[in-house]
Amino acid sequence: MTRKDGRSAAAMRPVAFELGVQRNPEGSVLVRFGRTAVLVAASVSDGVPRFLEGQGSGWVTAEYAMHPRCGERRQQRDGRRGRVDGRATEIQRLVGRALRSAVALERIGERTVTVDCDVLDADGGTRTAAITGGFVAVAMALEHLRRSGLVPGGVLRAQVAAVSAGLVDGVAMVDLCAEEDQRAEMDLNVVATPSGAIVEVQGTAEGPPVPRETFDQVLARAVDVLPGLGEAQRDALEGAGVPLERLLGRE
Amino acid sequence: MTRKDGRSAAAMRPVAFELGVQRNPEGSVLVRFGRTAVLVAASVSDGVPRFLEGQGSGWVTAEYAMHPRCGERRQQRDGRRGRVDGRATEIQRLVGRALRSAVALERIGERTVTVDCDVLDADGGTRTAAITGGFVAVAMALEHLRRSGLVPGGVLRAQVAAVSAGLVDGVAMVDLCAEEDQRAEMDLNVVATPSGAIVEVQGTAEGPPVPRETFDQVLARAVDVLPGLGEAQRDALEGAGVPLERLLGRE
Amino acid sequence: MTRKDGRSAAAMRPVAFELGVQRNPEGSVLVRFGRTAVLVAASVSDGVPRFLEGQGSGWVTAEYAMHPRCGERRQQRDGRRGRVDGRATEIQRLVGRALRSAVALERIGERTVTVDCDVLDADGGTRTAAITGGFVAVAMALEHLRRSGLVPGGVLRAQVAAVSAGLVDGVAMVDLCAEEDQRAEMDLNVVATPSGAIVEVQGTAEGPPVPRETFDQVLARAVDVLPGLGEAQRDALEGAGVPLERLLGRE
Amino acid sequence: MTRKDGRSAAAMRPVAFELGVQRNPEGSVLVRFGRTAVLVAASVSDGVPRFLEGQGSGWVTAEYAMHPRCGERRQQRDGRRGRVDGRATEIQRLVGRALRSAVALERIGERTVTVDCDVLDADGGTRTAAITGGFVAVAMALEHLRRSGLVPGGVLRAQVAAVSAGLVDGVAMVDLCAEEDQRAEMDLNVVATPSGAIVEVQGTAEGPPVPRETFDQVLARAVDVLPGLGEAQRDALEGAGVPLERLLGRE
Amino acid sequence: MTRKDGRSAAAMRPVAFELGVQRNPEGSVLVRFGRTAVLVAASVSDGVPRFLEGQGSGWVTAEYAMHPRCGERRQQRDGRRGRVDGRATEIQRLVGRALRSAVALERIGERTVTVDCDVLDADGGTRTAAITGGFVAVAMALEHLRRSGLVPGGVLRAQVAAVSAGLVDGVAMVDLCAEEDQRAEMDLNVVATPSGAIVEVQGTAEGPPVPRETFDQVLARAVDVLPGLGEAQRDALEGAGVPLERLLGRE
Amino acid sequence: MTRKDGRSAAAMRPVAFELGVQRNPEGSVLVRFGRTAVLVAASVSDGVPRFLEGQGSGWVTAEYAMHPRCGERRQQRDGRRGRVDGRATEIQRLVGRALRSAVALERIGERTVTVDCDVLDADGGTRTAAITGGFVAVAMALEHLRRSGLVPGGVLRAQVAAVSAGLVDGVAMVDLCAEEDQRAEMDLNVVATPSGAIVEVQGTAEGPPVPRETFDQVLARAVDVLPGLGEAQRDALEGAGVPLERLLGRE
Repeated sequence: MTRKDGRSAAAMRPVAFELGVQRNPEGSVLVRFGRTAVLVAASVSDGVPRFLEGQGSGWVTAEYAMHPRCGERRQQRDGRRGRVDGRATEIQRLVGRALRSAVALERIGERTVTVDCDVLDADGGTRTAAITGGFVAVAMALEHLRRSGLVPGGVLRAQVAAVSAGLVDGVAMVDLCAEEDQRAEMDLNVVATPSGAIVEVQGTAEGPPVPRETFDQVLARAVDVLPGLGEAQRDALEGAGVPLERLLGRE
Repeated sequence: MTRKDGRSAAAMRPVAFELGVQRNPEGSVLVRFGRTAVLVAASVSDGVPRFLEGQGSGWVTAEYAMHPRCGERRQQRDGRRGRVDGRATEIQRLVGRALRSAVALERIGERTVTVDCDVLDADGGTRTAAITGGFVAVAMALEHLRRSGLVPGGVLRAQVAAVSAGLVDGVAMVDLCAEEDQRAEMDLNVVATPSGAIVEVQGTAEGPPVPRETFDQVLARAVDVLPGLGEAQRDALEGAGVPLERLLGRE
Repeated sequence: MTRKDGRSAAAMRPVAFELGVQRNPEGSVLVRFGRTAVLVAASVSDGVPRFLEGQGSGWVTAEYAMHPRCGERRQQRDGRRGRVDGRATEIQRLVGRALRSAVALERIGERTVTVDCDVLDADGGTRTAAITGGFVAVAMALEHLRRSGLVPGGVLRAQVAAVSAGLVDGVAMVDLCAEEDQRAEMDLNVVATPSGAIVEVQGTAEGPPVPRETFDQVLARAVDVLPGLGEAQRDALEGAGVPLERLLGRE
Repeated sequence: MTRKDGRSAAAMRPVAFELGVQRNPEGSVLVRFGRTAVLVAASVSDGVPRFLEGQGSGWVTAEYAMHPRCGERRQQRDGRRGRVDGRATEIQRLVGRALRSAVALERIGERTVTVDCDVLDADGGTRTAAITGGFVAVAMALEHLRRSGLVPGGVLRAQVAAVSAGLVDGVAMVDLCAEEDQRAEMDLNVVATPSGAIVEVQGTAEGPPVPRETFDQVLARAVDVLPGLGEAQRDALEGAGVPLERLLGRE
Repeated sequence: MTRKDGRSAAAMRPVAFELGVQRNPEGSVLVRFGRTAVLVAASVSDGVPRFLEGQGSGWVTAEYAMHPRCGERRQQRDGRRGRVDGRATEIQRLVGRALRSAVALERIGERTVTVDCDVLDADGGTRTAAITGGFVAVAMALEHLRRSGLVPGGVLRAQVAAVSAGLVDGVAMVDLCAEEDQRAEMDLNVVATPSGAIVEVQGTAEGPPVPRETFDQVLARAVDVLPGLGEAQRDALEGAGVPLERLLGRE
Repeated sequence: MTRKDGRSAAAMRPVAFELGVQRNPEGSVLVRFGRTAVLVAASVSDGVPRFLEGQGSGWVTAEYAMHPRCGERRQQRDGRRGRVDGRATEIQRLVGRALRSAVALERIGERTVTVDCDVLDADGGTRTAAITGGFVAVAMALEHLRRSGLVPGGVLRAQVAAVSAGLVDGVAMVDLCAEEDQRAEMDLNVVATPSGAIVEVQGTAEGPPVPRETFDQVLARAVDVLPGLGEAQRDALEGAGVPLERLLGRE
C-alpha cells in the first residue's frame, strides 16, 4: 500500500534541521518533518522554579504555540484573548517532560533551559517535530554553556527523539500527516532513545477500543524509525560543530 | 514485597461507588479508590458543539477540578484567578476522550453529556477514579434517557474503566497511592475495557528512559485488574436498577 | 394556610448534618435544608492576611461556589471563564462576616480558617445553609486545634446560625424554597444567635417598598426558628464528640 | 454628645446636588454628602437583558467604581487588572435593586437605564450617596423620555433615598463619615421612601452580636432623616425643571 | 471658510480649567476644550518603578479612561471585561511621555506623579485636553510638594501643552471637534512648549499619503495656537496661587 | 562621524527579504534590517469587521508580537498571562494604519488581510522593518488574489516603507540600532512612499523639547533613504514574480 505522498507505511517524511535561524537564543533550530515546520529556541537563564531552589540542580521547561497562520485558515493569535488552549497546554507539558529526560539536570547547576516551540506550518506531527528539534536546540544550548566553561561534559543523559504512528484504514503507519491523522482509528506518539528505550508513550483509540496486539504493532512502527531520526539529529549537530558524544559523556 | 497499606503489588485499593449523592444530575456518583474520593455528575443537555451540529450525533465532554482542600493543604479555588491549570486541562481532556469511546454517540441524538469530576479527597489515581466512576454516572444518565423514551437500548458502545500502574523501587505495581506515585520511576494510566481492549495508554518514565520490556510489564499489571473494576461498576449499576447489558445492546 | 410541601408558615424544612464527608479538611460537613445541599469544608492554615499581620489575632474567610449542576440545568463551572459572579461574591462575603463574628479571633493566634461552601443541590436558602453548616465545620476545626493543644477553650465567641424568611402572597414565611423565593414580595436573611442577638440582617422588598411593620413581622418569623437551628447544630457536634460548651468557654 | 465635625448624632452632613455636570447622559448629578462626592450618570438605551425580552417591560441597572484617587492614597484603577472587587460588586447590585424599586418598569417600554456611579471623593456613605443621587439622575433621565413623548407620566413608582447609620461608642448615629464607620460596633444602610417604607435594610454587627433592640434603635436613626433627604432631592429636581410629582403620577 | 461652530480654521474652541474638583489628589483639574471635558487628577506617591530605583530620580505616568457615557451612546465601562483598549493604551502612553518631558525628574526625589485622565464628555481632542490640563494638575501637585518643603523650586523643566490639527476638505484647521476629526484627510497631534519647541508630533494621513508641504502646513496651524494655550494654563495656575515661574526655576 | 558598525549617519543597515518562509500564508516574508529580523505573514480571509460590512470594501489589520527570545534575555511569551503589552498595542495599530494606506481597500471586495509580525531578533527598528516587510507580504497576498481572478489590477494605492531616525549625540542619524535608540535625544519613525509623501510621522523628544528645525532635520534624514528602501522592496517582489507596477495600476 502506498501513501498519498508515495511513502511506504514504514517511512518518515523528509526531516531537515536549519540551525541558527535566530541570533539570540543559545540554541536555535527550524525543524521540518515534510510540510510541518517548527521554530525551536532554547534559552538558558539563571535560577530554577521555586520548588527546586537550593538543590543545585537545573530545570528544562517548554512552551508551545501555533503561529496564527500555521494552517489553512488564520486562527486567533495564541493567548491574546486570555483563553488558554487545552491542546497547547497538553503538548508543552509533554515536550518539557521529554526534554527533561534528556538532560542530566544535576550537572547543569541552578539554570533553566526554556524551549520555545513555535509552529510555523502545521501538517501533522508538530509535537514530535518539536521534541526532535528541541533535542537539537537543547544540545546547542548546553554546548554553549560547556564552551563558556560553565558546565562539564556529560550534561546530556540520553539522546531523545519523537515520532507519531497510527492505524489508518487498518494499516499501521509512521509519521502521519494531518490528513492521515484525521482518518486514523488509533494514534500514538512515542518519545524514545534511538535504541528504543521509552521516555513517553501516549496512544489513543479514536473510535472503538483496539486489541492489545494492535497497540503493540503501532508502537513497533514508531520505534522502528527512531535510529534514523537519531542519526539525523547527530548529523545536524556535528555539522554545526556540536560534539554530541562529548555532551552525552561518551568520550 | 508488601506495600505500605499491606496490599500486594497486584492489588487495587478498596473501590466504592455511592450513587445519587446529588439530586439534580441525571447521573451522580461518589467514587472512592482507597482514600481518593471523586464526586462525578453526568448532566444531559440538548444540543452539541458547533462542529457537530446537524449530523444527528451526540457528544460527551468532561470537566475536572480539585476541591481547594482535597489535599493536605488548602489550594486556591480552581479558576478563581483566571489561571487555567495545565494538569487539570490535560486530565479533563483524557476523561472526555475515555468516556466518548464508551458511548454510541450516533444513537443518542444531538445531546451532550457533560461529566463534572470534582476531587473531594486526593491520594493518587484521581483521573482513573474519575473515569471509572464517570462510566457509572454516564450509564445512569443514559438509562434516564432510555426510560424517558428518548433513546433506544444499545447506547453504550463499550464498558470502560481506568487504573494507574507504575514502577516503584523496581517493582511493577497497580493503583498507586500519592506517596508511591511520587517515588515511581515510571508511571502509566490505562483506559480499557474489562477484557483489556485499549482506549488510551499514557506512560511516562520519570527518570531515565526505560526498556521496552519494562513498559510492557507495567502495562500488564494495569490490564490485570480491569476485569475486577468492570465487575464493581456492573454491581453498582445493577444495585441501582441500571441494566448495563441492555445499555450495551447485549440483550 | 399550608405550603406546597405541607409545612406551616413558621416551619423549617428538615435540617441534616453529615460530618466528615471529606478526610482532609479540619472541619467537614454536608448540610441539608430540605432539598438544598451544601458541602462545607473548614481549613486551618498558618498566617493571616497582610492587614492583620503582627497583631496576634486570627481570621475567618469564606468562598462560595455553585456546583455546575446544582440546579435544573447545568451552568458553566464557576470561575472557568474569568467572569466573577456578583451573587457569589456577595454571598461569600456574608458567610465570611457571619462566621468571623462567631470566633474569638484574638484567641486562635495568627491562623486563618477558610470555609469553602460548595452548593451540591440548590433549592433556596443556600447561603443560610452555608452559614448554619459553616458554624458546625468551624467548630470542628477549632476543636481539632484545641485537641492538638494549639488553642485554649473559649475560642468561639458566639453560636450563630442563619435562616431566610419572606412575605409570600402576603404571608410571612420562614425558610423559603426556591419557588417561594421567586414569588416573594420581600425576602430577608438573618444571621443570629439561638437567642436572637443579631449578627446580620439583609432584607429587600422585591416589588414596592413595604411598611416598617411588615419588615418587623418577617424578621420575627426568622428569629423564631433560631433556637431550633441552634439545637440541631449542638446535637450534630456533640454526636461527633465536639464539646460546644467548652469551645464557647462556658465550662 | 457632639461628633468630630460638630454634628449631633441625629444630623446628616450637608447634602448637595449639582445637575448636568456631564452633557451626554440623560441624567447627570454630582452628589455630595459632606466630603463624599459621587458623579452619577443615568443613561437610557433601547433593549433589555435577555431574560426580560418580549415582556414590554424596562430595566434599571447600576455600575459603581472608585476613582483611583478618591481616598488618601491612590489605588489601582478599577478593573484594569482583571480582578473584580467584591465590595464594588456588592454595592452596584444594591444600587441597582434600590433604583429598580423606584421605577415603574412596566411603564417605560423595553428600555434600560444604566446608572454609573463614580466615587470622586470617599469619606463614608458612598453607596447611600450613590443611591440618593442616583434617584435624582434617574428622574432626570425619565423626564427626558417623557418630554420626548416616549413614556407617559407616572413612570416613577416611589421616591427613594438612602442613608447609613451605626452604633459608635454605644451611641446610635446617622450618616457615618469614614472615621466613624471604622469604629462602629454595628452599621446599617437603609434604602427607603421619605415616609419610611422599606426598600432594603442591610445591618451588620462588626463585633459581637447585638440585641434586637439595638438593631431597631439604629434603624430608627436612619429612618428619621429620610424626610429631609427626600426634600433635598425634590428641591434639586424642581430647581432644574423636573416635575417630580408628575413623574410619580401624583398630578 | 467658516466652521460649523463659527470658528475660523485657526481658532481654538473655548478653553476652561476648573481647579480642585476633587479634594484628595494633590492636583485636580476639570479641563474643557469646547464640549470636550476631561477630569485630571495628579497623585504623588513615594517610590518609583523598579527600573529607576536607587537613582534618586522621580517618575511621571498616566492613565486614561473614557467614562462609559462620555459619548452619544453608553459604552462598556473601561476594563470591566478584561479587554484592554488599544486606543486608551496608546493615549495614556502619549500623555505620560508628554508630562515626563515637562518635569525635572532628577529634582523631585524618588516620587511618582500619576496622572489620571477621565474623559467625562468626548467631542474630539480628548488626548490634547488631557495633556494640557495634565500640565496644570502636575504643576499643582509639585507646588504642593514645594510648599511642604519636600522639593525645591525649578522642578518643572518646561511648560507643555497639546493641540490637534488636521486637513479637512483641503483646509488646515486646528483643534478638531469629533465631526471634523472623522472627515479629516490627515490629522496630527502636537505636544510642545508655548514657544513651539517640540515634545512630540504624531501625524497620520487617513487616506492617500500627503505631500511633505501639506504635513508642514498642518503642523504650523497647531504650533500657532500654543502661545495662547500656554497663557490659559498660566492664568489658571496663578489664579489658584500656583507660581508657575518659580516652579520653572525662572525666578 | 562614524557609527559603531562603520556606517555613516545617512546609511541604512543591510536590508534583506526572504520570501515564502511559511507555506500557508498568502504572503510570507522574513525581513532583516541588520541584526533585526521580523517574520511577516499576510493572510487573506473573507469578511470584514462589523463596522465595514455591506459597503463592498476591504480591510487590512496587523498583529505584532515579540518572540520570547528576540532579545538578550528571554521574556514572558506574549499574551500568555492575559496582560496586554502597551508597546505592542501601539505598534500593531501603527502597522495596520500604514498598510491600510497602501491598499486600495475599495477594490479588494469584503476581504480582510491580516498581517502578523513576529519579531525573531530585535536590534532596533522592529516596527519599521515590520512595515517595510509587511508591504512586501501584502503585495504577495494581493498578487495571489489577482492570479486567482478574485481582484483586478490596481489594488495597491501606494508603495509604502518605513524607517526610523534620531538625534544621537547631536547628530541626525537614520535607522537606529538598539544601542543608538537608547541614547537618542529624539527619535522618529516615518512611514512614507519612496518619493517622500507622508503616511505617518511619529517623533518624540526623549529629553528636553527640541527646536522645530531639529525636528525637520531628523525627518529629512529618514525621508532620504526611502527611495532605496522602495527599490529593495521592488527587487524582492519582482525576483519572486510579483508585478509591483501592475498591482499599483501603473501598467
